[in-house]
Amino acid sequence: MASKGKVVLAYSGGLDTSIILKYLQEEGYEVVCYIANVGQDDDFKAAEEKAKLLGASAVYVEDLREDFIVNYIFPAIKANAIYESRYLLGTSLARPCIAKKQIEIAEREKAQFVAHGATGKGNDQVRFELTFYALKPDVKVIAPWRDEVFTKRFPGRTALLQYAREKGIPMPAGDKPPYSMDDNIMHISFESGELENPATAPSESMYRKTLPMDKWLDEPQTVRVEFRDGVPIKVTNQATGQEETSPVPLYLMLNEIAKNHGIGRIDIVENRFVGIKSRGVYETPGATILRCAHLDIEGIAMDREVMRLRDMLSPKFAEIVYNGFWFAPEMDFLMAAMHKAQELIDGWVDVLCYKGSCMAVARSSPTALYNENIASMETVEGYNPADAGGFIAINSIRLRAHREIVMKTPQDRLASSSVFRGVTYQ
Amino acid sequence: MASKGKVVLAYSGGLDTSIILKYLQEEGYEVVCYIANVGQDDDFKAAEEKAKLLGASAVYVEDLREDFIVNYIFPAIKANAIYESRYLLGTSLARPCIAKKQIEIAEREKAQFVAHGATGKGNDQVRFELTFYALKPDVKVIAPWRDEVFTKRFPGRTALLQYAREKGIPMPAGDKPPYSMDDNIMHISFESGELENPATAPSESMYRKTLPMDKWLDEPQTVRVEFRDGVPIKVTNQATGQEETSPVPLYLMLNEIAKNHGIGRIDIVENRFVGIKSRGVYETPGATILRCAHLDIEGIAMDREVMRLRDMLSPKFAEIVYNGFWFAPEMDFLMAAMHKAQELIDGWVDVLCYKGSCMAVARSSPTALYNENIASMETVEGYNPADAGGFIAINSIRLRAHREIVMKTPQDRLASSSVFRGVTYQ
Amino acid sequence: MASKGKVVLAYSGGLDTSIILKYLQEEGYEVVCYIANVGQDDDFKAAEEKAKLLGASAVYVEDLREDFIVNYIFPAIKANAIYESRYLLGTSLARPCIAKKQIEIAEREKAQFVAHGATGKGNDQVRFELTFYALKPDVKVIAPWRDEVFTKRFPGRTALLQYAREKGIPMPAGDKPPYSMDDNIMHISFESGELENPATAPSESMYRKTLPMDKWLDEPQTVRVEFRDGVPIKVTNQATGQEETSPVPLYLMLNEIAKNHGIGRIDIVENRFVGIKSRGVYETPGATILRCAHLDIEGIAMDREVMRLRDMLSPKFAEIVYNGFWFAPEMDFLMAAMHKAQELIDGWVDVLCYKGSCMAVARSSPTALYNENIASMETVEGYNPADAGGFIAINSIRLRAHREIVMKTPQDRLASSSVFRGVTYQ
Amino acid sequence: MASKGKVVLAYSGGLDTSIILKYLQEEGYEVVCYIANVGQDDDFKAAEEKAKLLGASAVYVEDLREDFIVNYIFPAIKANAIYESRYLLGTSLARPCIAKKQIEIAEREKAQFVAHGATGKGNDQVRFELTFYALKPDVKVIAPWRDEVFTKRFPGRTALLQYAREKGIPMPAGDKPPYSMDDNIMHISFESGELENPATAPSESMYRKTLPMDKWLDEPQTVRVEFRDGVPIKVTNQATGQEETSPVPLYLMLNEIAKNHGIGRIDIVENRFVGIKSRGVYETPGATILRCAHLDIEGIAMDREVMRLRDMLSPKFAEIVYNGFWFAPEMDFLMAAMHKAQELIDGWVDVLCYKGSCMAVARSSPTALYNENIASMETVEGYNPADAGGFIAINSIRLRAHREIVMKTPQDRLASSSVFRGVTYQ
Repeated sequence: MASKGKVVLAYSGGLDTSIILKYLQEEGYEVVCYIANVGQDDDFKAAEEKAKLLGASAVYVEDLREDFIVNYIFPAIKANAIYESRYLLGTSLARPCIAKKQIEIAEREKAQFVAHGATGKGNDQVRFELTFYALKPDVKVIAPWRDEVFTKRFPGRTALLQYAREKGIPMPAGDKPPYSMDDNIMHISFESGELENPATAPSESMYRKTLPMDKWLDEPQTVRVEFRDGVPIKVTNQATGQEETSPVPLYLMLNEIAKNHGIGRIDIVENRFVGIKSRGVYETPGATILRCAHLDIEGIAMDREVMRLRDMLSPKFAEIVYNGFWFAPEMDFLMAAMHKAQELIDGWVDVLCYKGSCMAVARSSPTALYNENIASMETVEGYNPADAGGFIAINSIRLRAHREIVMKTPQDRLASSSVFRGVTYQ
Repeated sequence: MASKGKVVLAYSGGLDTSIILKYLQEEGYEVVCYIANVGQDDDFKAAEEKAKLLGASAVYVEDLREDFIVNYIFPAIKANAIYESRYLLGTSLARPCIAKKQIEIAEREKAQFVAHGATGKGNDQVRFELTFYALKPDVKVIAPWRDEVFTKRFPGRTALLQYAREKGIPMPAGDKPPYSMDDNIMHISFESGELENPATAPSESMYRKTLPMDKWLDEPQTVRVEFRDGVPIKVTNQATGQEETSPVPLYLMLNEIAKNHGIGRIDIVENRFVGIKSRGVYETPGATILRCAHLDIEGIAMDREVMRLRDMLSPKFAEIVYNGFWFAPEMDFLMAAMHKAQELIDGWVDVLCYKGSCMAVARSSPTALYNENIASMETVEGYNPADAGGFIAINSIRLRAHREIVMKTPQDRLASSSVFRGVTYQ
Repeated sequence: MASKGKVVLAYSGGLDTSIILKYLQEEGYEVVCYIANVGQDDDFKAAEEKAKLLGASAVYVEDLREDFIVNYIFPAIKANAIYESRYLLGTSLARPCIAKKQIEIAEREKAQFVAHGATGKGNDQVRFELTFYALKPDVKVIAPWRDEVFTKRFPGRTALLQYAREKGIPMPAGDKPPYSMDDNIMHISFESGELENPATAPSESMYRKTLPMDKWLDEPQTVRVEFRDGVPIKVTNQATGQEETSPVPLYLMLNEIAKNHGIGRIDIVENRFVGIKSRGVYETPGATILRCAHLDIEGIAMDREVMRLRDMLSPKFAEIVYNGFWFAPEMDFLMAAMHKAQELIDGWVDVLCYKGSCMAVARSSPTALYNENIASMETVEGYNPADAGGFIAINSIRLRAHREIVMKTPQDRLASSSVFRGVTYQ
Repeated sequence: MASKGKVVLAYSGGLDTSIILKYLQEEGYEVVCYIANVGQDDDFKAAEEKAKLLGASAVYVEDLREDFIVNYIFPAIKANAIYESRYLLGTSLARPCIAKKQIEIAEREKAQFVAHGATGKGNDQVRFELTFYALKPDVKVIAPWRDEVFTKRFPGRTALLQYAREKGIPMPAGDKPPYSMDDNIMHISFESGELENPATAPSESMYRKTLPMDKWLDEPQTVRVEFRDGVPIKVTNQATGQEETSPVPLYLMLNEIAKNHGIGRIDIVENRFVGIKSRGVYETPGATILRCAHLDIEGIAMDREVMRLRDMLSPKFAEIVYNGFWFAPEMDFLMAAMHKAQELIDGWVDVLCYKGSCMAVARSSPTALYNENIASMETVEGYNPADAGGFIAINSIRLRAHREIVMKTPQDRLASSSVFRGVTYQ
C-alpha cells in the first residue's frame, strides 16, 4: 500500500477528482488532497469531508482569494491583458496561483508527485504542469486524463459512474449541466456540450455571475475606482457612498455592481495553446469594470510613447498568461516593463454601469499629463501653433521623396494592396 | 486681383471657412471651394450657394461616402484598428479621403495652393497636409489658423463675427454649442469647450448619433453581418429580415440599429500627434457593431499565429492612421499584411444589440479552422491526448533549466518585480 | 513483404539512412529513396547506386539548387533573416525545400508514408515533419530515431556497425569526424562531438567552405551586387569583370569569393525549438556578402518607417523559419509584408571583401530616397532649418509634461532602473 | 552689456563655436563656456584658454568619460542597440551625456539659456534640445544655425572666416578636411563633403580610430571579456595577460586592440530623425568587440523567450537613442525591461580579432542555461525523444487545419506572395 510514494492531488470535491483520488490509492499512492479556494461557488467544508471519507491521508483547504487578486488579477489589469481582444483570462490567471500553492504543499509534505484532473485537450493541463515544473523541476506529474491505462479503464461516463458506485463515492445531485464550467472570484467559463456548435447562441439561463437580462437594473449606476501606480486601491459606489479598500471586499463590490448590470459577458471562439480552436462563453463581471477604469486612468496619466510600447507588448503578455507561462523568465521580463509603465498612474475614474455596458465618463489624476490650458482650443498657452508647421514640414519630407519615386514607377510594379494604386492623376 | 494664384479651399459652409474664403480673396487668391460629403449632417446645397454668393470661382460638391466606406472604413475594420484601445478613428479615416479628392481638384483646376480651416493645435492639420504633400509633393498649403498675420487679425471670436458682418457672410442661427464637433457617416466627435475639464461627465443631451439613454429600445435585437475576405458584404436585421449589400445602405442600416440601442459611445483622454493630450467624446454607432462582428469571424476563421502577428501590428496601424500617414509607404507595408491576413475570413456573425452594448452570440464560416469533432471534450478524434504530454515536457525544458539557475541565485540579484521573488521554499 | 505500404525515405547515401533503408524493408515497407541535391558536397551517382543496391524500389535524385536559392534563400535575404543576431539559417531554409519535394514524390508514388533520419533532439525533425503535415495533412511520418523499437535495437554505434556489416551496407571510408555536419550550397554546419564543450574554440582545420586563415587572400577584393525589388539579379567581380545573372552561377561566384577571403564564419550557442541550447559553428560564405549588400541597398532605397516595421518583424521571420514553419499561414502573412517592403529596392552595392570581413563601401540606386542636395550640409535646398525648430518644440511637449510630474515625485517612487533616478538637481 | 541674460554654450574650441561665442556676446548675452571631454582627441587645455581669451565669463571643462561609458555605452551594449542593423550609436549616446551636464551647469550658474553649435539639418540639434527640455522644461535654447539672423549674417564660409579675423579668433591650422567629424571615446563619424556622393568609396587615409588596412596586425589576437549582469567587468588580452577592470582603462584597452586589427568600420546611408537620408562612415572599435562578446554571452545564459522579446524591442531602443529621446519615459520603460533581461548574464567570452573582423570562439558561464549532457546527441539524459513526437504533433494541428481550407480554395483567392501558391499537387 502507498508503495509508490505520496501525491498531492488538486481536489475539487466533484465526481472526477474523487474518482482520481480512489484510483491513485488503488495504484499504490498515498494521496494528499488540496482544495484551493479561489472564490468559486463551492462548499469547501463538504469537499474536505468527502476527501477524508475517501481516504485522503491529509486535506488542505487554502483560501487563495487575496493572493489571486493581488498577485495575479491586479498585475493583469495593470498590463491591460486581454486574450484575442476579448477574454480577460479568468481561468488562465487562477491556474498558476493554484499550482504554486500545490507545489508548496508538496514540499511541506515531501511528496514527489502532484496530480490534477485536467483533460488532455485543454489549456489547463499545460498551465498546471508548466507551473509545477517551473517551481520544482524534479517534480513528477500524474495526469490521469492523458494516461492510457486510466482512459482505457474509464472509456466513458458509464464506466466512471459504475466505479464511483463501487467505491462509495457520493453521487452529484441533479443532472449534469449541458456544458462544463470553471468558476472563481474573477470569472466563470462555460464550454463544451451544447456550446460546441458555435452557431448556437447561449441560453440566457446559463449565466451565473450576471443577472438574467430582464433583471438588469433600470437605473444607471456610477462606480468610482481609484488607482495608485496602476493598482486599484479604492472603489466607491457613487450612489450609496459605500467604499472598499481591501482587495477581497473591493473586488466583491465590483462583482456585485457588475452582476446587477449584466456587465462582462463574452462569447468567443478562441485558440488554445494545444493547437485547436474552442468555443467558450465567459462572465467576468468586476474585471470588466476594472479594465474600463484602468484604460481610462492611463489615458490621462500615461505618456504616449510608453503607451505605444506597452500596447505592443500587451497581447504578448496575454498570450504568455493564457499559455501557462506565468512562472517563466519572459513573464519576469514583461513584468519589469509593465511595472515601470504603471509608475505614477494615479487618480480616480468614474465608470457608468448600465444594462450590459460600462463606460468611463469622468476622471482626475494628481499625476495627469493632461493640461487643460494647453489642450484648450481657445488659447495658445504653452504651445506655439507655428511649431506645428515645422513639425508637419519635417514629417512630410520622406513622404514627398517616396511619392517622387512612386510617380516615376510603372503601376504594375506596385502591389494590388498599395494605397498608391490608382493614385494616377499625376 | 487673384494675383497670387488659385487655391482650392476645403469648405464646410460654416462661419470659419466662410471667413477664410473671403480672407483669401482679399489676400489676392482666386478661391475654388470644395465641399466634401462624407455623410455628415449638412445642407450641401445651402453650402454650395453660400460659396457662390461669397465669390468662389468654382464650387465642387463631392459625394465621397462610398469611397470613404469602401477604401477607408472597411480596411480599418479589417485591421481591427482602434486607437489607444478605444477610439475607432472616425475623423482620422475621413481626412485622407477628403484631402485626396482636394488634390484631385487642385490638379484639375491647375491650382498650386490648397487651404484648410483646421486649427494649429489639432491632429487634422497634420492629416490634411501629410496627404496633400504625399500626393502632390510640390503643392503649397495655406493654413490660416497657423498664420500669424491671420491670427493677429482675428485674435478672437468678436473679430471674426465683426469681419463676417462686414463681408456679408450669413450668420449661423442659434447659439454656438459648448463644444466643437466633427461629423461623418462613421462617427461624430465632441471636444473642447465644456468638455475640457476631464472630470466633468458629458451631458446626455449632447449625443447625436445615438438616442438618449431613456429612449434606447427595450427589446434586444440581433443583426447578422456577413464577411468575405474580412469585408462586410451583407447585413441582415434578423427581426425584420431586411438585408443590405451595398456599402452605403449597409452602413446606414448598421448606424440605425446602433443608434436605437445607444451603441458606440466613448469618452476618452487621448494623445494627439502634436504632443498634447486632449479629451474627446465620440459616437461611432455602426462601426462598433462591425468591429464586434469582425473580431468574432476572425475567431473562427483566422489562424492563431497570424492573429498574433496581426495583433502586434494593429496598434501600429491605428497610430499611423491617427497621425495622418494614410498615404505613406508604411501604410502600404501594413496594408499588404492586413490584406493577406483577411484572405478567407468568410462567414456570418450574429450580434446581439441591447442598451449600449453589443455582443457576438453565434457565427458560422465556410472557411472555419474550428472543428467541432476535434474540439469536443467527449472524443479523441484527430487528437491524441498523449501528444500533449510530450508537448508540455518539451515546453518545460527551458523553464526547468531557468529555475535551476534561479535556485542557486541570491534573492537580492532578482529585481523586485520578478515573479520568482519570494518563491523561496526550495 | 512490403505489407505495410510504401514509404519515401530522405536518403543521403550515408551509414545512418542506409541502415534505416534496410530496417524499413525488414519492417515490411516498400522503400522509395529520395536524394535531394541542395548543393552539398556529395557523390549523388554513388548514393543512387547504393540505394538501388540496398533494394530501394525506386530512387529519385533531385537537383533542388535553383529552387532552394530562388524560393528560400533569396526570400530570407529580402527579409534580412538572421537567427539570434548571427545565424543565417542555412539548414533551416533547406529543410522545407527538401521536404516539399519529398511530399511531391510521395504523391506521385502514392506512398502513405515518409521517413527521415533526423535525430530526436534536433530541429530538423520538426522542420521536416511540419512541412510534411502542412502539405499533406494525412501523411504518416516514420522517424526511426524517435522510435523506441529502433533505438532499443540500435543502442549505440557498435550495434549500427554490426547491423550494417550483416546487411552488406558499404562502410564509410576513414574515421568518423569528431562532429556532425550539414552541408548545402548556402552553408555548412558543425555541431556535437568535440564542439559540445562551448569553452573550446573550434580548430582551424575544421572549416570547409572557407580557406584556412593563413590562406586568405592578401588583396582586398570588391564585388558588386545588383538588386531589383530586393532580389540579387547580377553579381560582378570588380577585379576581373566577370558577371553572373543566373541564380546558381551567381551564388557559386559569391561563395567562391567569400571562400577565398574567409567570410561567413560564426560560432554560437543557440536556442533550439525543442527547448535546449546547443553549440554550433557555421560557414555561410555567399549569403554573408549578400546580406551585407542587401542591408546597404535598403539604406538608400527603403523608407525609414517601412524599415522600422520590417525590423520589428525580421526576428520573427527568422524564428519562424528556424522553427520549421515555412509552410504556415504566418509565413504567408510575413511574406506579403516583406515582399511589399522590397518593392523598388533597386540598385547596386560594392562590397569590399578582405580577410574574414566584408563591408559595403559604395552604392547607387535609381529608386534612391537619398537626395544629395537635400542631405548636403552646405545648402538649404528643399529643407528649411527653421522647420526643425518647430519639429523639436512639438516633440519636446510631452517630455516637458512628464518631467514636471517627475519633479514633483519622491525619488523612491521611481524604479532603480529609471534614467531619471539621480537627476535631482532641480 | 549682457543685458539678455546668461547662456551656457557647449564649446569645442573650434572655429564655429568660437564664432558663436563672440556672436552671443555681441547679442548681449553673458557666455559661460562648457567643454565636455567624452574622450575625443582634443586639446582641452587649449580650448579652455581660447574660451577665456574670447571673453567667456566662466569655463567648465568636464571629464565625462566614465559617466559616458558606464551610464550610456554599457546600457546600449546591454540592449544590443544597433541602429538600422549597423550603427552602434557613438554620437547618439554621447549627446544626452553632454547635454545633461550642460543643464547641470546652467542650474549651478543660474543661466536661463543654453546654446549649441549643431546644424539645422542634423540629428544632434534634436538630441541636445530634447535632453535640455526633458531635464529643465523651462530652459531657453539658442541654436544659431537655425536662427535666420545668424544664418543671413553668415551665409557661407567666407563670411565666417572674415568675422573670425575681425574678432581675433585664432584660425585653425591646415586645410579643412573634406568631411566633418564627430569624435569620442566610443567612435568617430565622418560625413558630408566628399562623402555626400554615396557611390564614392571612402579613402583609406580617412580612418583615425583604426590603422590603415596595410598596417593591420598579421597575427590574430584573442581578447577575453567578462560580464556580470550583462555589464563588462573585466577585459583580458589573452596574449599578454594584461587585465583591466575599471571602465575607462578597460574601454581604452578594447579600443587599442580593435584599432590594431581594423575592427569596427561601417559605411552607411542612414535615416535621420529629421526626415532625410544621409551617408556616414563610422569607426567604433572597442564597442564592436563588446557587442560581439555580449551577444555571445547571452547565447549561453539568456532564456530563449526573453531573447525573443528583447530582440523585438532592441531596434526600438536604438531608434529612441538615435532620435534623442534618452531622457524620456519610454526609455525608462525599455530600460526596466533591458535591465531585467540582463540579470544573471554572467561569464566570459573569448573574441578572436583579426584583420577587420571579430568572432566569438569560446565562452563559459556560471549561470549557463546550456547543459552539455542534455545537448549531447549521444545521450538521452534529461530529454525524452518521444516527447518531441508529441510536441511536433501538437504543433502540426493548426497547420493541417489550415491546409485543408487552402486545398478547398481556388488559387486565385491566394495572394501572389503566398508560399502556398503553386503548391497544387493535391
